Amino acid sequence: MDMLEARKAEMVQIRRHLHENPELSFKEENTSQYIIDFYKGKDVEIQTNAGNGLGVIVTIEGAKPGKTIGLRADFDALPITEETEVPFRSKNAGVMHACGHDGHTAYLLILADCLIKLKDSLTGTIKIIHQHAEETPPGGAKSIMESGILDKLDAVFGIHLFPSHPAGVVGYHGGYAMAGRTYFKLTVKGMGGHGSSPHLANDAIVAGAHFVTAVQTVISRRLDPFEMGVVTIGSFDGKGSFNVIKDCIEIEGDVRYMTEEAQQLIDQEVHRIVKGIEMEFDVQCELSYIPDYPPLYNDPDLTLFVKNSLESMEDKDIGSVLEFPMLSGSEDFSYYAEKIPGCFFYIGCKPKGVEKAYFNHHPKFDIDEDALLIAAKSMAQVVCLYFERQ
Amino acid sequence: MDMLEARKAEMVQIRRHLHENPELSFKEENTSQYIIDFYKGKDVEIQTNAGNGLGVIVTIEGAKPGKTIGLRADFDALPITEETEVPFRSKNAGVMHACGHDGHTAYLLILADCLIKLKDSLTGTIKIIHQHAEETPPGGAKSIMESGILDKLDAVFGIHLFPSHPAGVVGYHGGYAMAGRTYFKLTVKGMGGHGSSPHLANDAIVAGAHFVTAVQTVISRRLDPFEMGVVTIGSFDGKGSFNVIKDCIEIEGDVRYMTEEAQQLIDQEVHRIVKGIEMEFDVQCELSYIPDYPPLYNDPDLTLFVKNSLESMEDKDIGSVLEFPMLSGSEDFSYYAEKIPGCFFYIGCKPKGVEKAYFNHHPKFDIDEDALLIAAKSMAQVVCLYFERQ
Amino acid sequence: MDMLEARKAEMVQIRRHLHENPELSFKEENTSQYIIDFYKGKDVEIQTNAGNGLGVIVTIEGAKPGKTIGLRADFDALPITEETEVPFRSKNAGVMHACGHDGHTAYLLILADCLIKLKDSLTGTIKIIHQHAEETPPGGAKSIMESGILDKLDAVFGIHLFPSHPAGVVGYHGGYAMAGRTYFKLTVKGMGGHGSSPHLANDAIVAGAHFVTAVQTVISRRLDPFEMGVVTIGSFDGKGSFNVIKDCIEIEGDVRYMTEEAQQLIDQEVHRIVKGIEMEFDVQCELSYIPDYPPLYNDPDLTLFVKNSLESMEDKDIGSVLEFPMLSGSEDFSYYAEKIPGCFFYIGCKPKGVEKAYFNHHPKFDIDEDALLIAAKSMAQVVCLYFERQ
Amino acid sequence: MDMLEARKAEMVQIRRHLHENPELSFKEENTSQYIIDFYKGKDVEIQTNAGNGLGVIVTIEGAKPGKTIGLRADFDALPITEETEVPFRSKNAGVMHACGHDGHTAYLLILADCLIKLKDSLTGTIKIIHQHAEETPPGGAKSIMESGILDKLDAVFGIHLFPSHPAGVVGYHGGYAMAGRTYFKLTVKGMGGHGSSPHLANDAIVAGAHFVTAVQTVISRRLDPFEMGVVTIGSFDGKGSFNVIKDCIEIEGDVRYMTEEAQQLIDQEVHRIVKGIEMEFDVQCELSYIPDYPPLYNDPDLTLFVKNSLESMEDKDIGSVLEFPMLSGSEDFSYYAEKIPGCFFYIGCKPKGVEKAYFNHHPKFDIDEDALLIAAKSMAQVVCLYFERQ
Repeated sequence: MDMLEARKAEMVQIRRHLHENPELSFKEENTSQYIIDFYKGKDVEIQTNAGNGLGVIVTIEGAKPGKTIGLRADFDALPITEETEVPFRSKNAGVMHACGHDGHTAYLLILADCLIKLKDSLTGTIKIIHQHAEETPPGGAKSIMESGILDKLDAVFGIHLFPSHPAGVVGYHGGYAMAGRTYFKLTVKGMGGHGSSPHLANDAIVAGAHFVTAVQTVISRRLDPFEMGVVTIGSFDGKGSFNVIKDCIEIEGDVRYMTEEAQQLIDQEVHRIVKGIEMEFDVQCELSYIPDYPPLYNDPDLTLFVKNSLESMEDKDIGSVLEFPMLSGSEDFSYYAEKIPGCFFYIGCKPKGVEKAYFNHHPKFDIDEDALLIAAKSMAQVVCLYFERQ
Repeated sequence: MDMLEARKAEMVQIRRHLHENPELSFKEENTSQYIIDFYKGKDVEIQTNAGNGLGVIVTIEGAKPGKTIGLRADFDALPITEETEVPFRSKNAGVMHACGHDGHTAYLLILADCLIKLKDSLTGTIKIIHQHAEETPPGGAKSIMESGILDKLDAVFGIHLFPSHPAGVVGYHGGYAMAGRTYFKLTVKGMGGHGSSPHLANDAIVAGAHFVTAVQTVISRRLDPFEMGVVTIGSFDGKGSFNVIKDCIEIEGDVRYMTEEAQQLIDQEVHRIVKGIEMEFDVQCELSYIPDYPPLYNDPDLTLFVKNSLESMEDKDIGSVLEFPMLSGSEDFSYYAEKIPGCFFYIGCKPKGVEKAYFNHHPKFDIDEDALLIAAKSMAQVVCLYFERQ
Repeated sequence: MDMLEARKAEMVQIRRHLHENPELSFKEENTSQYIIDFYKGKDVEIQTNAGNGLGVIVTIEGAKPGKTIGLRADFDALPITEETEVPFRSKNAGVMHACGHDGHTAYLLILADCLIKLKDSLTGTIKIIHQHAEETPPGGAKSIMESGILDKLDAVFGIHLFPSHPAGVVGYHGGYAMAGRTYFKLTVKGMGGHGSSPHLANDAIVAGAHFVTAVQTVISRRLDPFEMGVVTIGSFDGKGSFNVIKDCIEIEGDVRYMTEEAQQLIDQEVHRIVKGIEMEFDVQCELSYIPDYPPLYNDPDLTLFVKNSLESMEDKDIGSVLEFPMLSGSEDFSYYAEKIPGCFFYIGCKPKGVEKAYFNHHPKFDIDEDALLIAAKSMAQVVCLYFERQ
Repeated sequence: MDMLEARKAEMVQIRRHLHENPELSFKEENTSQYIIDFYKGKDVEIQTNAGNGLGVIVTIEGAKPGKTIGLRADFDALPITEETEVPFRSKNAGVMHACGHDGHTAYLLILADCLIKLKDSLTGTIKIIHQHAEETPPGGAKSIMESGILDKLDAVFGIHLFPSHPAGVVGYHGGYAMAGRTYFKLTVKGMGGHGSSPHLANDAIVAGAHFVTAVQTVISRRLDPFEMGVVTIGSFDGKGSFNVIKDCIEIEGDVRYMTEEAQQLIDQEVHRIVKGIEMEFDVQCELSYIPDYPPLYNDPDLTLFVKNSLESMEDKDIGSVLEFPMLSGSEDFSYYAEKIPGCFFYIGCKPKGVEKAYFNHHPKFDIDEDALLIAAKSMAQVVCLYFERQ
């Protein structure tokens, strides 16, 4: 902990460097190289180009045999034009670290370095997972898991910075914790015609409107009312001329769920309704239904362990360890946690003196950099106690 | 015409007798016998039990050969409790001549008698069609046509009393004149369950409501806007307990149209929507879709002939001959007119001194009995001129 | 008639000149000048810049006093890129005489010239109405009527070329003959938000879909089923991002009707439904509801006169005079016919040797130029008999 | 515990007596008297006719001062015809203890008697709440709370028998645990008319169907997706004649929610949609919206105390103490728990040898009577430890 405290300024500096040089998902070449350079000359094994992109996996083998755990931080940025006034704001126009991944990477580099220095006393192996492309499906995690390089992990941990709480608050949620997500596109093809002669045409807008109305029943009537589920039609593209009957419209939607059961049920029902609309209005429908990240499931025992570990820290910086509610956002950490007992927890980072912070993905998103040290200490505590309890 | 005028009181007396003794469709035993008795001893051929009921067909063969025409009057009454104050009101509780069929029969009996007396001078044959069961599908007309006894008709005529106009007005409409009609019953079966657990049930009310909403598009989007069409859901039987999800509902509907094209289109679209709902909501639907009377089509040439014939009458009683609009009501005279050139025309019968008359099928429906003589004279004129023009 | 026959080639030449030089509504400067030049030096009164545009009204005063009649032809073209192969095709890229107004103008110029030559024998006055901007609401007719220059007309006549029938067929329809039309735009404002949190937003697409569904009932349940009516939603502009709840959508619609009663009923019902949707979904709606051309009402007596006049022509070119059905298209001739007894009739112009012609407004629309002489002769017949019957 | 064990047979006997003599809510005269008689001559204060019915509240004052707690059992039965084969089945035709209230009362009477015997060693006061009318809103609990007799309680406890688990399982759920419930009735008045003339009527079925469709959006779009909520339309009474447009329909619904926020939101949205439908379809709506039992909120600390108390029992009969999920059923124990820290927990009672038990409210509902002793011991443990921890 003292080692970490001593390197707080370094974390901040790394985070600022990354913040100034954000890169989009799957295009994080400089970021990836920066990470590789950081580890150069250190006594670790480095795997580059992990998965379907520029991921970097660093293996720190402890002197004593034991469990193998993964610590994951993502490093990609977003296609957002930064609107903050910070001196280190993005130099890459239209790209911004608006989700805190710069901070995730910064704390984990320093923590990894400390762990490398402590290799001799470590009872087990640590894989530092610097993951690319969390923001853009299919994401980086899925392919990293499929590559097999994490096959032998006993546990995997990750954190996310959230400005809902101030620095000092650490949050957790056992079981299903963040929503799974599916994107869909539905094309409804009728037949065009003159506005005054509907019987000679087949109105795609009317069929599309009935789809929107009918799809509400998936959540209101088919889903277990104790289950979380959302079907949002974000786009109904039926722009045309007022006096021409529209031949074709395009609908795009966003589906959320907390469990696989809910995912499967919604999938099946949306498909059924589309087939019903096709028959009902004699239209042709094409449905692309593409699940991306599954719900994030935090192993309950591991989460309890994390909670207890954090509560047992006697650290002035850690104010409180809170149970957070389930979140409707999605995270590709869920791919690790599908196969390996995992725990993804939350680090408060609300800027000081601010009543209500701009949330992640906002062009004015900002963090309290004290949260970096808290992230590092929290994860260090988890790692130490995990190895101890073996 | 003088013969008819002389027997005006007799027409009224017959009509009142029938009015006092109404009988329901397919159960008109006394009425049928009354008619048979009327013709007894006269020089005509009488066919009883015509078609699927108690119809009576009387053949008056003229001395000279010529065309064969049919004159039709219906004689059944309605399951309505009479609320008029006339002294000859219904003695048969719950049954009433509320549609004027008593008047139709009365005028035609007297007219027939006059024609019998004139047999020697008639150039052709007249079939007097006293038809049972017009009010209740499948009606009497269809079966009479199917029996073949009217196969050789060259033309068929009929009238209806309507209190929309005063006695003295005669109305006509060439081409499609009265609507065709279809009855349907739709059963929607889902699965029952407790109101608090919709996901364990399958809500038939929601599926039925979507059917009601979707079926509106048949008229609004699929039917030629210049075509008349109606789809009415008259009954949505989904009564149940507030906290039990309904397993099954029953919908009954009434469809109207003026042409066979419209009939076929609506038929096809309702069936399609039912199939769509079945798929969309995973329910089982049963649809009984039963066309009864087709649209009534008045032969345009024959109607023009009727119009001209009536206009050429120089009769103080006939005030005006008007083109009526198409009517949304239905009539099984349409079955005759499907196969034989036919003309069904309208006799005003609004009671004197009344601003707005009670319409047909109302418990207070009443007629101006002067209309009986006008009906008789009008039909006589048509018959005479029809034989003359051969 | 002989004079007209002699100038058939001239009509064709004028029509081809106009066809080659089409101009959009309200921008017909060269066309208008061409017309003015045509009349220069002739013994008539010429009013230019009639109404809200470039209309030209020419008054031919007969030697003998009598009725005053108007003959109207429109002269604007459409924003369509011509796809025919005719040698005189449009030289004005993206603009095309695809509705036959070139032909209307050509025949009327020659007919007017003949009538001028016959001034001494004319018993009455003729106003030749060369009207601009028929294709684009508010059109030219309304403003010409409002200007008062046609106040003293006793009757007004016009024709339209339609390729539904071959040259030689002339069509008519008494009473309501072409549909009235209303344009509307509906903006539905909800509140945007993230796709995963519908409760923090207010989904404008869902509200808009319910409007589309509910508005079907105006035609299916509120309008007299014997009335023609259409409400088409031609545009539903709700394009957005799949995972963002749409804050605002824009709907554009096209309404058609054959009577003022239908117009008023639909107007009232659409407004009511919009208010209902506003309440039901807590959205803000703005509705621009703009009637443009009213239904075209052909005076029944005048139409009968036109029909009889045309049938009495003994002309080898006129094959048949047919009653046409009502048409769902709209025409600003209706503004004249609202105030003055009017008759707008139809001249068949299907190109020879063609099975099924491209209809008006199609980029391959073409006419049989023989129809020009038929239009001229038909109108001449109507004018002559009209003056005679005084 | 030994005292309880010794009186197991007595509990069973009382339960069977009550089972044989079930009485409907608010009519439990014999049951109430039976309870009163049980306490006669014992050293307690008895309040009869508690609240709005036949409730009985018995106060057991311990020798030593301390906290005051309430133990509640309900004693009414259901309007169900019993279909079990047990020898002690209902003698009261059409009435049945199908929800286990006979067992609740039986265990609590014996427990109370034991506690009375232990009065001298008790450090505090116990109020035994024998509550009438749990099954029928407004229920008995609300009025008992309003009467003030429980004003001084420090905590309140209750149990329910559930055959989802075998005897030996005890369940708990802290926080919101059982759903709140609202009943509503919506009358939609349009105007009747003939099926063929929708424009002369105003179709209540179409308006009602749109309500059903629109109300789905309350759950799908307005409610926080992490909140539980149900709006079930259990009854849509629109039965009529197929060819008559329905003037009036009646809808009945059942609303469920786990929090007051959800309750208020759904209340507000249903009211809004009703107003919207009224405007949209020009109908008159009457909405009776009657919340009955609020969500049941188990005090989290008290529930943790109960859980820990039960887990600390060393009793062979208690197999496991499980966290149950939230339940969508409702309970008027919630009224006590609104004002007093409360914990309502669950006692497994699945009959032995049965794979899947008939659930509460089923005519074949039955219990494993061993559950009575478990209920008594569990509650005794809670009472003892509660007084100890003061």
